[in-house]
Amino acid sequence: MTTQATDAHPVTVDFRTSPRRYRHWRLETDGPVATLTMDVDVHGGLVPGYELKLNSYDLGVDIELYDATQRLRFSHPEVKVVVVTSGKEKVFCAGANIRMLAAASHPWKVNFCKFTNETRNGIEDATANSGQVYIAALNGTASGGGYELALACDHIMLIDDRSSVVSLPELPLLGVLPGTGGLTRVTDKRHVRRDLADYFATRPEGIGGRKAVAWRLVDELVPRAQWQEKVSERAVATAQRSARAAAGGGPGIELTPLDKTRSGDAIGYAYVSATLDSERGVAEITVTGPDAEVPSAIADTRALGARFWTLAMTRELDDLILDLRTNEPEIGTWVFRTRGDAARVLGYDALLLDNRDDWLANEIIGYLKRTLKRLDVTSRSLIALIEPGSCFAGSLLELALAADRSYMLDGPPPDDPDSKERAAICLGPANIGPLPMADGPGSPAAPLPMANGLSRLATRFYSDKSGFTAAADAAGRDIEAAEAEELGLVTFAPDDIDWDEEVRIAVEERSSFSPDALTGMEANYRFTGPETTETKIFGRLSAWQNWIFYRPNASGPDGALRKYGTGQRADFDRKRA
Amino acid sequence: MTTQATDAHPVTVDFRTSPRRYRHWRLETDGPVATLTMDVDVHGGLVPGYELKLNSYDLGVDIELYDATQRLRFSHPEVKVVVVTSGKEKVFCAGANIRMLAAASHPWKVNFCKFTNETRNGIEDATANSGQVYIAALNGTASGGGYELALACDHIMLIDDRSSVVSLPELPLLGVLPGTGGLTRVTDKRHVRRDLADYFATRPEGIGGRKAVAWRLVDELVPRAQWQEKVSERAVATAQRSARAAAGGGPGIELTPLDKTRSGDAIGYAYVSATLDSERGVAEITVTGPDAEVPSAIADTRALGARFWTLAMTRELDDLILDLRTNEPEIGTWVFRTRGDAARVLGYDALLLDNRDDWLANEIIGYLKRTLKRLDVTSRSLIALIEPGSCFAGSLLELALAADRSYMLDGPPPDDPDSKERAAICLGPANIGPLPMADGPGSPAAPLPMANGLSRLATRFYSDKSGFTAAADAAGRDIEAAEAEELGLVTFAPDDIDWDEEVRIAVEERSSFSPDALTGMEANYRFTGPETTETKIFGRLSAWQNWIFYRPNASGPDGALRKYGTGQRADFDRKRA
Repeated sequence: MTTQATDAHPVTVDFRTSPRRYRHWRLETDGPVATLTMDVDVHGGLVPGYELKLNSYDLGVDIELYDATQRLRFSHPEVKVVVVTSGKEKVFCAGANIRMLAAASHPWKVNFCKFTNETRNGIEDATANSGQVYIAALNGTASGGGYELALACDHIMLIDDRSSVVSLPELPLLGVLPGTGGLTRVTDKRHVRRDLADYFATRPEGIGGRKAVAWRLVDELVPRAQWQEKVSERAVATAQRSARAAAGGGPGIELTPLDKTRSGDAIGYAYVSATLDSERGVAEITVTGPDAEVPSAIADTRALGARFWTLAMTRELDDLILDLRTNEPEIGTWVFRTRGDAARVLGYDALLLDNRDDWLANEIIGYLKRTLKRLDVTSRSLIALIEPGSCFAGSLLELALAADRSYMLDGPPPDDPDSKERAAICLGPANIGPLPMADGPGSPAAPLPMANGLSRLATRFYSDKSGFTAAADAAGRDIEAAEAEELGLVTFAPDDIDWDEEVRIAVEERSSFSPDALTGMEANYRFTGPETTETKIFGRLSAWQNWIFYRPNASGPDGALRKYGTGQRADFDRKRA
Repeated sequence: MTTQATDAHPVTVDFRTSPRRYRHWRLETDGPVATLTMDVDVHGGLVPGYELKLNSYDLGVDIELYDATQRLRFSHPEVKVVVVTSGKEKVFCAGANIRMLAAASHPWKVNFCKFTNETRNGIEDATANSGQVYIAALNGTASGGGYELALACDHIMLIDDRSSVVSLPELPLLGVLPGTGGLTRVTDKRHVRRDLADYFATRPEGIGGRKAVAWRLVDELVPRAQWQEKVSERAVATAQRSARAAAGGGPGIELTPLDKTRSGDAIGYAYVSATLDSERGVAEITVTGPDAEVPSAIADTRALGARFWTLAMTRELDDLILDLRTNEPEIGTWVFRTRGDAARVLGYDALLLDNRDDWLANEIIGYLKRTLKRLDVTSRSLIALIEPGSCFAGSLLELALAADRSYMLDGPPPDDPDSKERAAICLGPANIGPLPMADGPGSPAAPLPMANGLSRLATRFYSDKSGFTAAADAAGRDIEAAEAEELGLVTFAPDDIDWDEEVRIAVEERSSFSPDALTGMEANYRFTGPETTETKIFGRLSAWQNWIFYRPNASGPDGALRKYGTGQRADFDRKRA
């Protein structure tokens, strides 16, 4: 398969932005109602070679959307409803830009879809867990990814102007699937009957009017003349019903620009750093614990704002994950270390978890949850190294629990054999919910669940109740290497004589395997247990889409993606597989 | 990607066989204990070009295994335990043959994996629903698909001879995934911790001895000297615990050779027929209802044996599905019709369902269930046409409920406008369990569940309780087209004026779409709702495997599958996607 322009994309993509720099979205708030208006700059594509007509989007457009959803949560606690609409006439959004997709390399396409999916899952998360309810106000046609954006909203209003429709034209026009959860959400979330959903997804001209309501594709059809009024009414009524408390306690905090340094082989922030070894295909990532005592009261977190350790660290980790995923596809193994004071990490956790009714505490925990989920769906091998001086405790222990494998040194630091210092890990409420652990595995109280709805600890001991209980019983105290291995909390616990060699082999071996097979294996193992819309999107829908994207029927010279808009028909290999 | 010898495979694969024709397996019974011995004929490959060394298998070997599992259920009701073992020294089974896989076309690989998965799911089904408990007696190393065969068994015994191990070497040696459920069963069924499972699946030399037991990879380690004795003891003890009734009522029935005719464009059996239109890519399949009155007592079914309508029809349908899937990859759309007396179909259903404690009735229902599941995972578009004279009632209505779309004619037959005959469908206990329907959607009593554990009707109305109830309330009576559409039981109900045109467009349109995208869409829509090991295998694991199979890192000229055994290393594109 030929790779295209974006394969050697000329820019290192930067995920940092802010509303004043947006080119494609407007974010306005009016008391409890925010309006997010999509008005894509046709000439504002992230890489050259395509025009973003009809509110179609590329990664750059979606980076702004992600930024807006984050700022709504942190800087606008008064907002209870977010109306997503379009600044164009007669078109809401035409979905991902086809020429961009046709020219993109396979890894770029896959990574782009993953990020856009995460942002849409985040919209659902804001609706469910922050009481910021998203309403899609479709003032024109929503096709493909445009309709999928609407599907992520809690309520879909469609203008009744005899021309606006919703559609999923990917299959008939492009020979691919809707890439951001459309198939799953149509049936599993909106309960469109599957045979009607089949018809809908093969009909490029879409469905509007009363049929769209009858089939549950949209919730409401609004006459053109009453559009503004009905959208306002809906927003106000939704705000009144919102579970969000009355912005208990003052204004939001500012998400100040991330202080980041980046060279070819190093990325640094205040609490997170990474060194990149292109030859070995390895990123060595270190997360540093809090550098200050735990604030004495939750109100202090508001004054600290973006400098508060948990929030600062989470923002940095989030940016690093996005940066490495997008810009460093050949760095296939991420090795995680931590450094710092475990007790402080637990103290910061406790401050947040004891104050979950505080809106900011709730947002910080939720953001850490989403960032760890982003790690879970990252197509890189994750290895945690637990050494003396580390602070894999509570929220930071989740990094080790998210890893495909963890190695814990059973002995002194290799470079200081006389040291009495030993590595220890510590489970806390961030890992298993309020202590003492009452609800058993899968406790809904676990504050950092994976996409499958379970905590990483419960997933680790899936259906092994006694293993889970033994581990959870050890919560709140330091666990050294031999016991951690015995309890099944780490994969291996080599002693100081074997440590270097064993870790080296684990990392090098990873680089020798097929990157594709590793991605497939990890995607399967990381989602043991129950399934949710999210796991279906990342575990199943994405896998099919990756396959379809890669096949010549879509991406080959005669494939549908490449022939779109040329006036020529795609030439399909008709063999079913 | 270059396709290989088997792409234009010289033989039309025939799935019909019987124990006396086996080349690779021996089936022996001794009272309640059956032994299935794998002893693959090195030179007995289905197509030329590879040797089946070390009990490695190809489709031909697995066709015999499938036949054996079916005959155990129908011809050996006295069997309560099936011991699966090897006739070779020191090797149980080396899994799917690598040279066969390396040379196979992509559709062949995918279809091969699907069939082998179905057979292993059938082994678990026999253990769970027929009380024929499978024990894997690994008298030598079980690698890859060999270990996956063991994973499908209820209990795994491994010989302790200091050399025999279990392994999943696909990832490190071949750059692909274990293709028959290995990753899912290791974690979700056997509860191997996911980090240990990761280590295991990257270690081509495998794991044996006490570690294999401690990690739950096997259940039991048996010293070489006690092997025969311990296997016998285990078999006898398992038989004593079996839920299977004492073979209530005489000997098994013979699965007589299927009477089948096949030409390039037609396949015929007694109750099932298909005409193949290669140009349009369409198979028109007709299933005929019973040609005799319902037997008055369940005992009569034993006398009729393989001639009993439900069993005969199911066997024919099963063979047709396997034939078309394997031999006709370009026939992308299957159109289903039925013809016959709906009341008789319901009568046959009732005879079976009212006698589920009869072993043969239980087996026939279970076989129909598995055959319909095979249809659900078939990568072809399924369209049901419901016309006057059809008998889409009860068990045969499941064909329409399994379809991606159904069209029901609202009017007289197109060729006889004066006729008073109208199409009707009828829901019965086969669709929703015992009537009156008491347990609500997803009733465990539904006798023909899909892989997701729900009936097709419950899946259709997933989370739409009122829709399900309205449909179920109409059970037991004829439902004509307009009402069927209103109740959501069919997709569309065109009148006789529109019928021909609308059906023609639906079928032709299907042939114009990308076959890959159709496969992906159908695989997603068909599994709405809850997930099980089976849906994970077909919905997720298979999708990843298909993608990996297709990528050059596996199947390209320098890919791992092609380089295996050459002494050269694969050359990987290291970009993660």
